[in-house]
Amino acid sequence: MIQHIATVAGLRAALAASGHDRDGRVALVPTMGALHEGHISLVNEARKHSGLVVVSIFVNPTQFAVGEDFDAYPRSLDADMKKLAGGADIVFAPSAREMYPGGHATTISVGGPAAGLETDFRPHFFAGVATVVAKLLIAAGPDVAVFGEKDYQQLLVVKRLVRDLALPVTIIGAPILREADGLALSSRNAYLSTGERRIAGRLNVILKDAVAQARASGDLRAVEAAATEALWQAGFSHVDYVAIRDAQTLEHIAALDRPARILAAVKIGKTRLIDNMAVA
Amino acid sequence: MIQHIATVAGLRAALAASGHDRDGRVALVPTMGALHEGHISLVNEARKHSGLVVVSIFVNPTQFAVGEDFDAYPRSLDADMKKLAGGADIVFAPSAREMYPGGHATTISVGGPAAGLETDFRPHFFAGVATVVAKLLIAAGPDVAVFGEKDYQQLLVVKRLVRDLALPVTIIGAPILREADGLALSSRNAYLSTGERRIAGRLNVILKDAVAQARASGDLRAVEAAATEALWQAGFSHVDYVAIRDAQTLEHIAALDRPARILAAVKIGKTRLIDNMAVA
Repeated sequence: MIQHIATVAGLRAALAASGHDRDGRVALVPTMGALHEGHISLVNEARKHSGLVVVSIFVNPTQFAVGEDFDAYPRSLDADMKKLAGGADIVFAPSAREMYPGGHATTISVGGPAAGLETDFRPHFFAGVATVVAKLLIAAGPDVAVFGEKDYQQLLVVKRLVRDLALPVTIIGAPILREADGLALSSRNAYLSTGERRIAGRLNVILKDAVAQARASGDLRAVEAAATEALWQAGFSHVDYVAIRDAQTLEHIAALDRPARILAAVKIGKTRLIDNMAVA
Repeated sequence: MIQHIATVAGLRAALAASGHDRDGRVALVPTMGALHEGHISLVNEARKHSGLVVVSIFVNPTQFAVGEDFDAYPRSLDADMKKLAGGADIVFAPSAREMYPGGHATTISVGGPAAGLETDFRPHFFAGVATVVAKLLIAAGPDVAVFGEKDYQQLLVVKRLVRDLALPVTIIGAPILREADGLALSSRNAYLSTGERRIAGRLNVILKDAVAQARASGDLRAVEAAATEALWQAGFSHVDYVAIRDAQTLEHIAALDRPARILAAVKIGKTRLIDNMAVA
């Protein structure tokens, strides 16, 4: 039976009562709900590390800018609870008022891997993410927390946040789950029309091609340019970026002389999609 | 016997070994060293709340701006350790590299009570304070932490930080200790020449007069102006501010219709002094 908890105090009490915050291990899987198989794979990963799995469901307003899809973001708590049956022990689904009570005035900013890429297009995004993730980690006090590699830059930002604040938690990145045509699972895929969905399936194919070209030619700037052109040709409405970067720091690299990652963000109509994969 | 610990990992290991992080209570007193009787009073206050008292000694570089007294700030670890004998159980004195390892890129900003006053003159101060205090609280995981009312705005900023991040710690403010002439104890008093020391002793007297006038007249702006003029007349080199504010939020108030605090910052030569007291 999953416990459904809406307050930080309630969460702490439940963890204390479980004995797992003292003697056992706790894993946290932070989500914004609208759960799909990708999230469930994070929960299953969490279960490998801990006898008690907490899934948080919170559509965090501070990581959305005005004009983004905060209001439209799919919310389906009842369906989410059913999907988590047998997987999670506690669902922590606080209100915005619980997470940001009146007078809330604290913001956590992370530089380093947060610079560029998503930040160029969503400048407030990572401060919102870092603040809410820190608050969730402080509230749940987990031994491990699991994040999807789908949001690869976010994963690195969270790792830096945890290192810098010396939060006593291990951050685990879990691999991207994909549809049959390779489209990365995302709650935002639900926005896509049938025609858009077909175009969306091209993103991962073009990135895979780019990886092969990068390994063959080594001219990373030419590969980024070619992939950008291929995305436009495939019918995407906008290509925010395609970038091959250092896989640990996201710094620019001139050659594949270290672990590298290709990351991309595109739009189809109003829907923004991101994807990434290892290059070397 | 005081334990002297220089790393976060060492601190956590010592707290775990003591059993006090599990079964008993831990109190933290964050300081920048150069300890005086004011600090010792904070340690004694901490002892009332906890069987294990940790005093941190760290001159935090991120709360000093270029041109401020970071390099000159008095450092006296051996003397500090002696003063803490019998008072503290653990002295946590990390290096700057331990607190800010290479690539450190996380900053915590607090609005609310951090706006104005000190921030008008030391714009980076409270972000430095909030970041290091959060890190110290996360490292030590205390049940209570004690801060002096001498740094009254800082105390309110720390309380807001702790509330906003829901850190599981109670922040306790301890009253200002004063010399015979009423000068608030401060490590920076050591900078004062004999002549400057005589002038410094006027600060608290002028603030006390201002409190009496505020209670009598109720014209807070006139009282602030008169106190500012009196400080210039007393020989201070500069008056950064004298302000009567809401004691909880530090917002401007027009009348003494709620708990209020008078706060002042002045300079004598290169030495900057602050003081504050309750008005109503």
